[in-house]
Amino acid sequence: MNDIKAGLIGFGNIGAGVVKLLRDNSTVIRDKVGTGITLSRIADLDITSDRGVAVDPAILTTRADDIFNDPEIDIVIELIGGYEPARTFVLKAIAAGKHVVTANKALLALHGAEIYAAAAAKGVEVQYEAAVGGGIPVLSAIKGNLAANRFGSVFGIMNGTCNYILTRMTQEGADFGDVLKSAQELGYAEPDPTFDIEGTDTTHKLAVLASLCFGTSIDFNAIYTEGITGISGIDIRFAEQFGYRIKLLAIGKRTDDGQLEVRVHPTMIPLHNPLADVGGAFNAIRLTGDFVGPVMFYGRGAGQNPTASAIVGDLIEISRSIVAGGGSRRAAPLGFLDSAITTLPLKPMADIVTKFMLRFAALDRPGVLAGIAGKLGEKGISIESMVQTARDNGGEAVPIVIMTHEAREGSIRAALDEIDAFEYICEKSRFIRIEDNLE
Amino acid sequence: MNDIKAGLIGFGNIGAGVVKLLRDNSTVIRDKVGTGITLSRIADLDITSDRGVAVDPAILTTRADDIFNDPEIDIVIELIGGYEPARTFVLKAIAAGKHVVTANKALLALHGAEIYAAAAAKGVEVQYEAAVGGGIPVLSAIKGNLAANRFGSVFGIMNGTCNYILTRMTQEGADFGDVLKSAQELGYAEPDPTFDIEGTDTTHKLAVLASLCFGTSIDFNAIYTEGITGISGIDIRFAEQFGYRIKLLAIGKRTDDGQLEVRVHPTMIPLHNPLADVGGAFNAIRLTGDFVGPVMFYGRGAGQNPTASAIVGDLIEISRSIVAGGGSRRAAPLGFLDSAITTLPLKPMADIVTKFMLRFAALDRPGVLAGIAGKLGEKGISIESMVQTARDNGGEAVPIVIMTHEAREGSIRAALDEIDAFEYICEKSRFIRIEDNLE
Repeated sequence: MNDIKAGLIGFGNIGAGVVKLLRDNSTVIRDKVGTGITLSRIADLDITSDRGVAVDPAILTTRADDIFNDPEIDIVIELIGGYEPARTFVLKAIAAGKHVVTANKALLALHGAEIYAAAAAKGVEVQYEAAVGGGIPVLSAIKGNLAANRFGSVFGIMNGTCNYILTRMTQEGADFGDVLKSAQELGYAEPDPTFDIEGTDTTHKLAVLASLCFGTSIDFNAIYTEGITGISGIDIRFAEQFGYRIKLLAIGKRTDDGQLEVRVHPTMIPLHNPLADVGGAFNAIRLTGDFVGPVMFYGRGAGQNPTASAIVGDLIEISRSIVAGGGSRRAAPLGFLDSAITTLPLKPMADIVTKFMLRFAALDRPGVLAGIAGKLGEKGISIESMVQTARDNGGEAVPIVIMTHEAREGSIRAALDEIDAFEYICEKSRFIRIEDNLE
Repeated sequence: MNDIKAGLIGFGNIGAGVVKLLRDNSTVIRDKVGTGITLSRIADLDITSDRGVAVDPAILTTRADDIFNDPEIDIVIELIGGYEPARTFVLKAIAAGKHVVTANKALLALHGAEIYAAAAAKGVEVQYEAAVGGGIPVLSAIKGNLAANRFGSVFGIMNGTCNYILTRMTQEGADFGDVLKSAQELGYAEPDPTFDIEGTDTTHKLAVLASLCFGTSIDFNAIYTEGITGISGIDIRFAEQFGYRIKLLAIGKRTDDGQLEVRVHPTMIPLHNPLADVGGAFNAIRLTGDFVGPVMFYGRGAGQNPTASAIVGDLIEISRSIVAGGGSRRAAPLGFLDSAITTLPLKPMADIVTKFMLRFAALDRPGVLAGIAGKLGEKGISIESMVQTARDNGGEAVPIVIMTHEAREGSIRAALDEIDAFEYICEKSRFIRIEDNLE
């Protein structure tokens, strides 16, 4: 049998990794597929820069249409990222009868439903393992061997940039801005890190994961998203003092009343939670199925080589189907049949119940604690513990930190709004959600 | 489309879990496959005992042949365990053109090659996710999305019984025999726990995993196997004192010189290693691919529900192929094509290089340490640290514990043989291998 031919759109760092992997492990692939996989065409606006891998210049093109129009190409790999023209290219590839492999979580989070429907109508596969968790094969597992389960939850650390920054802030007692700058210099954060540090990238991934786990179509814009830019060294120190570590978590849960809880925010987790030790650029994703119980996946969540591993893994799986006779032979893009996809109502953030760490900056004078505690009590919020560190510092604001028992987020927000109006409160009060028993 | 029909051989605890899962999650399965999966026949010598799940008595039979001869059955689930008659039944099922799902690691470790060849010749699938790591979908991942990698190593904690016993010995400072007895009473250990505590079960799993990762046929009997029966409370206490935890690890590595290192034994790992915190009945399996880097999987390694999750996961994957047109559409049983399976030479244990903890029981008199240290030096073994706790105890033996730098196991064994001949050595000296940098 002739080699299976793939076309690549978007020849950046990850694309170069795919070229390298297909070259270095061509024997491994042939031994597992029964035929080779050749990248026969690469489209990019820039076809002159050196990507550090040797490529026959004859296969480079600036026109993506050269790939869609090539009848020998069975699989299109989309690696340009972003919403457009990625969406147009993927839909064109599907319309041309090509299987699609993509790493584009943003595209799938916003336009997944449209793309999956087009693929189903055309009988081609859309695979996207690299979109979440880099090389960690968690999406394949959810669609594949774990498919017998009804999932109750999926959560984890899914953005290496944020995790790297928080890990260094924790280890060095450093502040956000300083670590971000150093992370950019070291290549752990993009020159424009907005999508990472504001949580958007994590929310894209949560949208993809939750759709898979719960068989539901999710309105990406309705997912609560809070990044790590508001986390300061003092938050991290107080959290550690109470036995917690701050991580940017994505959390998806099916609630007992048939709602979906989906949220991305800095979260305090107990130091003994396995996720607390996931450091640096690593990702960890945990899910709970009604039969399998808790399962955790851990590995490199980004980077050229791990991402190429996931992309070529998808190429291999599709190629096995082609070798066996063509067409889509495996799970539908979401694991569920299109007809089984539902839309679950999202639980409003005001109704979320967790414990909270509250941090106030207040003038150090009599009656302050009584005032704050009184307002919390009035809103039905009970206090587990409290710490006020500095005193007698000449009239400046002192930090007051309060750990609450479980409370409705709506009550917390209402209480803080009213407390912030007290004349002895010097800056906007902060809260961080605490998850003691994520399951 | 009519339901896909499966037949089950071996109606024990796990079989009852499969019945329960197919019943409880029938909608989930239908939503993901497009048709239902029905257990239409169950064979067991005992068809009268209550398994805690309702089954139509008409589908029960004492004759496995009733399943092989039923033309409506597409998939046979083998859950009787052990070598025979499991091997005969699986081969009969394949000969009858049925796909096979099995949880039988012993069978695959010893007769895998024969079974995979028969399945390939007949064009049917053999799936066995439940054979390793209970519900953890690690085998599917290796064959599937991680397939683009050349694997360098695979290792982990794969026996819940041993891990439960070692965890309790560590937490309670208790001795092996006492914890085993309690584990049996609580149902965490079998009435006859030999296969678990002597390491055989772990070695079965390592044989299966290493075959998958390295595309090689392994002589099961050539794998070095040492269980946990020789571990005492004093070993655990000394290990913790030096910053290590003792776990029963299965370790498989491809060495630079083209050999395969495969071994199962109690291993000291640093307390900060993620595997050190895997407690109780949980399993964790870690592997390293040349592109993906390190990946870890964690979950319940045994039990009725997690094992049923893996078995029904296999049923779902095979059923998707049947719905799409029948035949084997996915990876070969080992991920590699039969023609690509090699036989790699196993590295002799004498050539393994690790650090070691040595424990001697010696009379407390002058010259003893010098004698032991001298003999170690003579064999080229250098000492990293040493501790001798008790003194002046009236002539009884005292423990002497030595941590070595890296050394050949052959040298260690030769040195201990000669040291044990010293007249002041009171019992056979012990060693435990240390892995500081498992990758």
